[in-house]
Order: sequence, then C-alpha cells, then structure tokens
Amino acid sequence: MADSETPIRFGIMGCAEIARKVSRAIAIAPNSTLYAIASRSIDKARQFAVRNNLSEEVKLYGDYNDLLDDPCVDAVYMPLPTSLHLKWAVLAAQNGKHLLLEKPSALHVKELDKILEACESNGLQFMDGSMWYHHPRTAKMKDFLSNLELFGRIKAIHSSSSFTGTSQFLENNIRVKPDLDALGALGDAGWYCIGAILWSMNKKLPTTVTALPAITRNSAGVILSCSASLYWDEGKTVATFYCSIISHETMDLAVCGSNGTLHVEDFIIPYEESSAAFSFTSGAKFVDLHIGWNVKPQEVRVACKLPQEAMMIQEFSRLVKGIKISRLRPDSKWASTTRSTQLVLDAVKNSIEIGFKPVQM
Amino acid sequence: MADSETPIRFGIMGCAEIARKVSRAIAIAPNSTLYAIASRSIDKARQFAVRNNLSEEVKLYGDYNDLLDDPCVDAVYMPLPTSLHLKWAVLAAQNGKHLLLEKPSALHVKELDKILEACESNGLQFMDGSMWYHHPRTAKMKDFLSNLELFGRIKAIHSSSSFTGTSQFLENNIRVKPDLDALGALGDAGWYCIGAILWSMNKKLPTTVTALPAITRNSAGVILSCSASLYWDEGKTVATFYCSIISHETMDLAVCGSNGTLHVEDFIIPYEESSAAFSFTSGAKFVDLHIGWNVKPQEVRVACKLPQEAMMIQEFSRLVKGIKISRLRPDSKWASTTRSTQLVLDAVKNSIEIGFKPVQM
Repeated sequence: MADSETPIRFGIMGCAEIARKVSRAIAIAPNSTLYAIASRSIDKARQFAVRNNLSEEVKLYGDYNDLLDDPCVDAVYMPLPTSLHLKWAVLAAQNGKHLLLEKPSALHVKELDKILEACESNGLQFMDGSMWYHHPRTAKMKDFLSNLELFGRIKAIHSSSSFTGTSQFLENNIRVKPDLDALGALGDAGWYCIGAILWSMNKKLPTTVTALPAITRNSAGVILSCSASLYWDEGKTVATFYCSIISHETMDLAVCGSNGTLHVEDFIIPYEESSAAFSFTSGAKFVDLHIGWNVKPQEVRVACKLPQEAMMIQEFSRLVKGIKISRLRPDSKWASTTRSTQLVLDAVKNSIEIGFKPVQM
Repeated sequence: MADSETPIRFGIMGCAEIARKVSRAIAIAPNSTLYAIASRSIDKARQFAVRNNLSEEVKLYGDYNDLLDDPCVDAVYMPLPTSLHLKWAVLAAQNGKHLLLEKPSALHVKELDKILEACESNGLQFMDGSMWYHHPRTAKMKDFLSNLELFGRIKAIHSSSSFTGTSQFLENNIRVKPDLDALGALGDAGWYCIGAILWSMNKKLPTTVTALPAITRNSAGVILSCSASLYWDEGKTVATFYCSIISHETMDLAVCGSNGTLHVEDFIIPYEESSAAFSFTSGAKFVDLHIGWNVKPQEVRVACKLPQEAMMIQEFSRLVKGIKISRLRPDSKWASTTRSTQLVLDAVKNSIEIGFKPVQM
C-alpha cells in the first residue's frame, strides 16, 4: 500500500465521554484509523475499548507517556480536562504528534500560545475539536453571510449555547471542578458562541468585550451560566451571547445584516446526522398597510454524507497527510481560529473578574 | 338598535401611515365603526379618506379640537408624533374620549403618568397600539412559557426588532426628527423588544437595565440603532435586545427556560394574516454519543380569523362598551403594560445618557 493511501493513525489520550463520539468519527472518516487509546490506568482504557466495541487491534495504554512514545501514532486526539492541556499537548508536540485538542483549548491564551508554539516548531498540524465548522451547512451559511446583495453588512449577532447538566454532572463532571475545567460554562458552552460570532465576523476580533452582570456559579466558584457583549466599529456592529450548563438545550445563532437575516437553532449539534438546515430572509419588506411580509423565511437544507465530527477528522487527517507525505506546511488557519476564540474567551473572563467592565482587545 | 349592539365610534386623530392599517381594523372589527378622522388641515383629512376608500359618512375634521368636541366620538385612536401625545391625549381624556394611543406612548413616564391620570380620573379606557399582544398566537406562546413542566423557569431572553428605513424615511419621517419622535429606533422598534421581554416575564420589572455601548445616531442625534440588557434576580435571569431602523427586517423573540426553549421570528407583524406560528423544544437531550437530539422543534400554528390589529380594536371596544353600557371600570391591565414598557424604555435611555452605566429600577 502506497503511503498516500495509509490512513492517519490516531491515538486518543483520555477516555472522556466525548472520546466515544470521536473514536467513532475516526472509524468513519476515510483517511484515519484508531491506532491506540491511553488512559491513566490500563483498566479504564480496556473498559473504554469494550464499551465502544473497539477492534482488538487498537493498542491500549495505561499511561499517556506510553502512547506518546509509540512511533506509530501520527496524531493525538486529546479530550483531557482543560487544566491538563498545556502539559500534555506540549509533550505530544515534542513527541512529534499532530494535535487535535478538545475545546476549550487552554485556560488562557498564554498557555495556548505555548501549545501552538510547540506544534509550530515541530511542524505539526493543530486543530481544536469544534466540529460544527466542518459541517457542509456551515459553508452554506457562510455563502449567505458573504453575499453582499442577499445579506449585506453585519449589524447584530446573537448566539446561545446551553444544556442542562444532570445533577450527577453538576456534582462530578470535570467541567464544574475548578482544578480541572476552571472555565466552566464559558469554556464548555460559551466557546461555541464566541466561535460562531467570530466565524460570522470572518474572525475579525472585536474592539471591546464586556461581560454582562448575569452570572451563576456553583459553590466552588465555577461559572454555570454567563453572558457577554462584543463590539466592532465603534459599536456599529454588536454581538451578544448567553451560555449555560443549567438551562434547556439551546444552540442558536441569529445574524442580522443590512439586507438579510439568518437563523439556525442547532448549529453546534444538528438535530440529526443526515442533514441540517438553516433559514434566512433577504430583502424583506412589509406589504401595503404592513399586514404581512413580502417574503417568508427560506429553509436551506444541506445533506451530510459524513457526520460533522468525521468531516473534522477527515480534514485534519488530510492536512496531516499533506505534511507527512507531501512535505506541506501545517495549515495555520485552525490555530488562528482557536487563538481568536481563546482571546475573546479570556477577555470575557477578564471582564467578569474586574466587575463586568469593558476589556479592550 | 339596543345600545349594546351599537358599535363603538372611533375618531382617528392624525393621518399617519399606521392610521391606514388601523382604520381598516376598525372597519373589520365587529364592535367598532370609524366615525370621524381629523388632520391638521381638512385637505389632508380628505386625501386620507379618498386614499383609503372611507365611506362618505365618515366625518372629516381639519382641526383636532373639532373631533374632540364631537359628542358622538366614543374613542380616539391617536397616531400623532410622540412629542404631541401629552397635549392631545390629555385633552382627549378631558373631553371624555377613551384612548387608543400609538406607541411609544410618551417621551417619558412622567408624561405618560399625566395621560394615564387623565384617563383614570375621567373613567376612560386606555390602551397603547401594540397589536401583537392581541394575536391568538401570543396567548398560545404564553401557555407554553407558563407551563412549568414543558418550559420551566425563564433563564434568558433575546429579542430583535429591526427594519430598513428607506432613504426618504430616514430623512423625513417623524421617527427620526428630534422634535417629533425623540426616541428614534428605541421608541419605534425597541418598544416591541421591551414589551416582549416584559411579556415573557409576566410584566415583572427588571432590577437593573444597562444599555450596551452599541448605538448609531443620525446627524440630529436621534437613535437609529441600539442595544440593551436587563437583569432580574441578581442576574440569574438575563435579557438582551437589539433594535434598529437601519437593519434588515427582523422580529425575533427567543426564550430559554430550564426545561424548554421558544422561538418566534415574526412576533410583531406575522408573515401572513391568516395564521402565525412559533416553535418550541421541550425536554431536549442529546442522543447517545451526542450525534443528534431526542426531539426536534415543534411548530405551533395558530389560525387568526381577524387580523391582530382588528382583535386589538375589538378588545378595546369591548372594554369601552363595558364602561359605557354596563358601567364597568376601565381595565387597568393595559395601562400597566404600557407603563412598565415605558419605565424600561426610560431606563435604557437614561443608561445611554449616563454613558451606558447600569440603571437600578
């Protein structure tokens, strides 16, 4: 078998719940294979393999270092708690592993920069685990937002990302433990809102970020829900978001432009795998007497042959293959997307810490 | 004909564009009739009558005072510029006319209180011209939001109200003239967002209102777009809104609760007259592996026999008839709804004026 047909061999570091979804995606994507999984104990790794019907060929490691030492592992998918990203992501890069890092990427941008620097200096591809960017619907939405005639200039964006943690989740999950995922709902759910807002704005950073004085914390101080506002162009463009892990499942993105409006209500995880939709209006006017509209929302439904997480794996593996086989340079677009998201997340956190005051970027 | 079968006789004071829609509504509603219209000149009144095919029986007045002096006028619909509301609404009440007052109700709550006091002391019904409260869809949405099992407790609300003023509108319309409608987009479009947020919250006033530093003004200083945030219960419930008269037609209300989420995208003017819809999810969970949802949004479509503005006229006329025939007291619910909206609008304006600082209510 020629090298160009060899699938990229993934090692999964950490048997988090999300790793189940991604291990399936690695199996589904046409250019990747699950080569090894590592947990802090070999028993945990074995349990994960059994629960997810992994092939007996998948290597099981009871120590993350063993996986990083394995020269057959091309790339690492790392769903570890955020506080462990810096140590293990840098080690992975130092061991020459391309890095698919679960979000939030790091506790703050200084940590992230060390991770990105380790990847860059070792010629490795970096990508964070935000899956929705890879759904073909996302490209279709961008077509609409980029169309000056249909959509025009962006005026206002609102995004919501929430889910209801079970009581077990809210007591035990890493995302509500200050020593593991200190960013709480902001890192877990707000990451998507910030990403969607920046994606809408073609990654243009806001000039100012202000957290809203609407925040809920658990007894350990971890954020369970919060809100923030972002400003561009002296406030001519505004975005707001709400994120929560104690509210009903909601995944909204609404973008209002000068000539059109876009709505999507399942942007992070589509209602179903086979297809996903968004709706838009363009050139809407009220009919005579203002008793109705001249247009109704148009639904755009986009079929999806591969689940979005498999498309993420496919894209990541394609880039890794380009580096490995064709000696291409890593695509810095994904590191840049992650870094912008982290910068805004940091600004929101900073604004909260200084009493909901504006943070200039 | 018995008194109880006599329709309520309306006089329209001011031949604004919106008066065309309301004169049609008065004609459609089963318990009202258009008795007279008044403009600042008899020619304008005549033009309005011709343009709208009014019956020749409709009296035409070239002076607002003449209409108020006419003892046959039961109720006045007043779509005058906001800055004229105080003078003419009080005069109407002093002349014993029930008052349907176009929104925004007044430049600030002190003016509104004088109007409400004039109505109350003369035993007159007051209502503002917000039509969407009267659509049967609105009651259906409230059923959902009030259902503790399906929706739960309100966590976050977002509302948008925008339209694109034509260049003619932006140069000449009363809503962009500081001496006529000094509240600009906040009064014209933001009124609906504030109303929808308070409606969602069962009229409970927020503890704090903060305008966001995202504001556009015309050369005369009138607001063309702005945003604000509202807080209840120490920030455990948060609402944000965006209003604009220089953005694409958008009329969103999204309400996220502990157990459900509601979306409506045409809440102010339904896409069509005959029926209107909203969608909701309840008890949503992600399926195993988080590759989809266990539920999809349910659309609730509500038929509408009468246009919402005719239902407004019908409800107002029913209340007026109760006072006139059955000696009932005016229903203070509508004055209270208007006053809460005005109070929050004032707080947003105040927050803008003091540099986007929080205003305690």
